[in-house]
Amino acid sequence: MTNPTAAMLVIGDEILSGRTRDTNTHHLAGLLTERGIRLMEARVVADDARAIADAVNALRGAWDHVFTSGGIGPTHDDITADAVAAAFGVPIGVREDARARLEAHYTRQGIDLNAARLRMARIPDGAALIDNPVSAAPGFTLGNVHVMAGVPSIFQAMVAGVLAGLTGGAPLLSRSLRVERGEGDIAGPFAAFAAEYPDLAMGSYPFNQAGRFGTNLVLRGTDPRRLEAAMARLEALFPG
Amino acid sequence: MTNPTAAMLVIGDEILSGRTRDTNTHHLAGLLTERGIRLMEARVVADDARAIADAVNALRGAWDHVFTSGGIGPTHDDITADAVAAAFGVPIGVREDARARLEAHYTRQGIDLNAARLRMARIPDGAALIDNPVSAAPGFTLGNVHVMAGVPSIFQAMVAGVLAGLTGGAPLLSRSLRVERGEGDIAGPFAAFAAEYPDLAMGSYPFNQAGRFGTNLVLRGTDPRRLEAAMARLEALFPG
Repeated sequence: MTNPTAAMLVIGDEILSGRTRDTNTHHLAGLLTERGIRLMEARVVADDARAIADAVNALRGAWDHVFTSGGIGPTHDDITADAVAAAFGVPIGVREDARARLEAHYTRQGIDLNAARLRMARIPDGAALIDNPVSAAPGFTLGNVHVMAGVPSIFQAMVAGVLAGLTGGAPLLSRSLRVERGEGDIAGPFAAFAAEYPDLAMGSYPFNQAGRFGTNLVLRGTDPRRLEAAMARLEALFPG
Repeated sequence: MTNPTAAMLVIGDEILSGRTRDTNTHHLAGLLTERGIRLMEARVVADDARAIADAVNALRGAWDHVFTSGGIGPTHDDITADAVAAAFGVPIGVREDARARLEAHYTRQGIDLNAARLRMARIPDGAALIDNPVSAAPGFTLGNVHVMAGVPSIFQAMVAGVLAGLTGGAPLLSRSLRVERGEGDIAGPFAAFAAEYPDLAMGSYPFNQAGRFGTNLVLRGTDPRRLEAAMARLEALFPG
């Protein structure tokens, strides 16, 4: 059984200028791994209609799911919904159920649903809405593309809703062994070891903590017994 | 005068699995902005030769500079140098000056330059070495692609060296105005304002701090007088 695949697309000049640090990719990565969906690629693009549409089309053709964050607010630089509609070649306009959600939310707060806020009800034809329990303005799923807000608290709430409806795969398990030897010392035997387990992904990550150099060896796979067996051999190969 | 452009390519399964949080992109983004180089795109790909080579070729064709991080250590999952050589269609092998740097470094520490460590002297033909003042093993520049380590302290040291040798552009300046009104309130007048300054990039970023909702308006450009004039008008438009 193979695991579903996914890509993340972060949209926003503020990430590329260094003003804001993207935290959504890391959040999504952890959740996908738990659910057995392999995150294969992540991209950050500017608030540029062509760049967004090109990335959406490249990623939705290559992977099972695409998650986007950013660019669905009320201001003129929020162009993600239009760019995604263009990528799919479908019309976009204010949708009644999305408008109703905004109206209810703003009426409760005594705030006017003006033209700018109404832009957040623009949804490409054929999309399904993604709930926004934080601030009402919905995301949407069009084909295999899940379009969500960039504000981390809203992104996280939307992702939780989307993932609840997706079929995952066998959880992607990982085990790690901390070895107090340099990466260059263990690279030879570790490579030979890895070659015996083509079904497990293996990586090595050097560390330097409080003057102690060493390497974390990480094994990843979906079969828990296979992973435990490999770990037992690895511990024998590099005894503590 | 136009500013040079750049892309970042992060290489590593550990980022995509959620095990490690990428910090190199944010670090690079801030430095490039200071130097007037526009970061146009960032990508994260897995430790996969084809994925790395395809991304390198897409990015080096599209932008003036490509910066990569990760995959140049001594272990079997460190395949960036070979993938970059493949992307350029050039041979790769152990290079004498790179080997000499490693030998001097390890001899000082009484550590054997074994076959695994010697892999870090594999450099594509035609590349220039990038100094590694932390742990000796060099990065390299091939064409417009700068290949660096993933460990943040080493990445940062290498980037400093590379940027010292690059021609930047007019610094990309930014000014921001904090407005204690919701994004949806100000979106209309802000869009009209932005349309009057096509040479400035403008973004709006909602915040919610200690129960206060508001929006940070950010203006970016290279002409300081133009930026100051726009800021003065913006402050008049949204008085504190």
